[in-house]
Amino acid sequence: MIHFSINKAFFLQALNATKRAISSKNAIPILSSFKIEVNKDAITLTGSNGQISIETIISSNNEDAGLLVSQTGAILLEANFFTNIVSSLPDIIFEFKEIEQQQVLLVSGKSEITLKGKDVSHYPRLQEMETSQPLVLKTELFKTLISETAFAASHQESRPILTGVHFTLTNNNELKAVATDSHRLSQRKMTLDKTSANFDVVIPSKSLREFSSVFSDAVETIEVFFSDSQMLFRSDTINFYTRLLEGNYPDTDRLLTNQSETTLVFSTGALRQAMERAFLVSNATQNGTVKLEITSQKVTAHVNSPEVGKVNEELDVLESSGSDLTISFNPTYLIESLKALKSETVEIHFISPVRPFTLLPADDKENFIQLITPVRTN
Amino acid sequence: MIHFSINKAFFLQALNATKRAISSKNAIPILSSFKIEVNKDAITLTGSNGQISIETIISSNNEDAGLLVSQTGAILLEANFFTNIVSSLPDIIFEFKEIEQQQVLLVSGKSEITLKGKDVSHYPRLQEMETSQPLVLKTELFKTLISETAFAASHQESRPILTGVHFTLTNNNELKAVATDSHRLSQRKMTLDKTSANFDVVIPSKSLREFSSVFSDAVETIEVFFSDSQMLFRSDTINFYTRLLEGNYPDTDRLLTNQSETTLVFSTGALRQAMERAFLVSNATQNGTVKLEITSQKVTAHVNSPEVGKVNEELDVLESSGSDLTISFNPTYLIESLKALKSETVEIHFISPVRPFTLLPADDKENFIQLITPVRTN
Repeated sequence: MIHFSINKAFFLQALNATKRAISSKNAIPILSSFKIEVNKDAITLTGSNGQISIETIISSNNEDAGLLVSQTGAILLEANFFTNIVSSLPDIIFEFKEIEQQQVLLVSGKSEITLKGKDVSHYPRLQEMETSQPLVLKTELFKTLISETAFAASHQESRPILTGVHFTLTNNNELKAVATDSHRLSQRKMTLDKTSANFDVVIPSKSLREFSSVFSDAVETIEVFFSDSQMLFRSDTINFYTRLLEGNYPDTDRLLTNQSETTLVFSTGALRQAMERAFLVSNATQNGTVKLEITSQKVTAHVNSPEVGKVNEELDVLESSGSDLTISFNPTYLIESLKALKSETVEIHFISPVRPFTLLPADDKENFIQLITPVRTN
Repeated sequence: MIHFSINKAFFLQALNATKRAISSKNAIPILSSFKIEVNKDAITLTGSNGQISIETIISSNNEDAGLLVSQTGAILLEANFFTNIVSSLPDIIFEFKEIEQQQVLLVSGKSEITLKGKDVSHYPRLQEMETSQPLVLKTELFKTLISETAFAASHQESRPILTGVHFTLTNNNELKAVATDSHRLSQRKMTLDKTSANFDVVIPSKSLREFSSVFSDAVETIEVFFSDSQMLFRSDTINFYTRLLEGNYPDTDRLLTNQSETTLVFSTGALRQAMERAFLVSNATQNGTVKLEITSQKVTAHVNSPEVGKVNEELDVLESSGSDLTISFNPTYLIESLKALKSETVEIHFISPVRPFTLLPADDKENFIQLITPVRTN
């Protein structure tokens, strides 16, 4: 029969962090609950949607938490409802007391709220992970890597493996992340400070985006552990589990090339804005494209959507070399690709109107490469 | 054939203000367009959803607008699309030029965008209003009046007249606004500085909420004009038209009473927070209510939702007089009523468990009164 008291604001923050893993409409109804486990010196909150799971640990050593545990135990409480109730409590601290089996009394100021919970045995077991030999990553670097690659993964379930990002560690310190939806590709390489065991996994891009929300920039490093089917990102107070995608990721190395017939350098921001204008008009037509006309004199962008109108624009080019070329593509791909670039200038290499073109950030051409496949037009 | 140039940011602001009247899914497709009328010394932008219409006037006298008209004319352009295009333009100013019938060329920096428009004759005629003898209202006061009453109007179309707020002017300067959905009522009175012709109209509460968004607090006063079926709120740069509701508004005066068997005074904020806690639990049950038990010793609030839990809470009462009473009601009504109160303390008068109770702001008991009907429970 659980009994503890805690700082309301601190507890609420932990509930909200854990709730990120909970989807309001889950096929497994019990997963709309928090699992709350109260031990002598810590509370563990668990939320899960079956794909990702988050455990948040509140230690009684943390002074901000103001946690005082009188009796231990575990219970399930409906996540949204419980969070709203805690948020509404009047006092700075509150008392959480199991008054009979699966009945909780919250006392705060003059308010007493009784809630019905569920037996903790109904909650599915998260797969146990062996947690020896972690890979240690800098949170900020890993977030950058996610923002540079995850957007390029497929949003369609027709080839499930492409909805993930392919992470490999080779030579014990060469990390590579690749994502492609078969129309565009983004690859980031990074050399780790510390060596670790090599791996080859495909992480769902959804889980990676969630990673960036779950771990704040205040968390300097995270430990990473793998099993065959899932992985665990661990900080002092958060365990973030995600399932891995099964199957073989296609060989993407053969797609990358150093070939270049035409090279242009743009200001990343100016090119992106021009493409956003192009997109507004191209988007009115199904599979609308923008046409780039590259000559030694100038580079122009053209969109023609007979229903709504046209765009004709001369683009400011910082550097230009190679042969003339006319190439058409979906401006969305170029917009998203430019958004992922931190570099102020971008170098684009074209081979032919029907071959993918390559984007490199001008300040780091070795480690970050993106490909976009053109659209054949007549 | 229209031709003008204008400051992009200023024009965009005017487009966004006008777009408030345009619903993206209107039964009349042409109403998804702006009507753009260019005269020698001003542009008038019109948006409408058939119920409300907004005209925004950009004068060439306004230096911020940077408006230079070379040729006049009128055209219809799809509102969302045109707004997005203008927003994407690269330069501070842009040129708007009708290049052939219903074809517009926008030129900004090196970008040229051609858009298809529609003939202005397709646009419905806004009813003309006679604009002599305005009623002049302080914008801020009128907004207060709206926020104190419009929320109490009905959201259901079963009795359309109750979806409006009943405004009357009597004795040429006594303004009264009443709204009720038959479960609760809110009435605000106000004495105007200047006299005006008496009126009796029912304004859709939706239009009133829109009023508060359309006229910024920078607009000190607005002029008000009536016809039989619509009214016009006018500032220097904006004409805001709304249809009036037809039919007789029920006599609400007979519902108001000075009778009181039990009187309580609460801190508005503390009572609201207690009711919000009560609502969280009552809301889990259909037609869930909160029960107030008033004795000379204390006032307590109780909710019992067998599915999810219970609330028991002692309320802090600032003053209390009269007989003991137990009364049940929907906490939502009390929450919304307290939100509408600017006063720090609220006086509540109860007559019996089955008669509506009355809320008065402690600092202005003469001019603002609200009623809430209790729920009979066993």
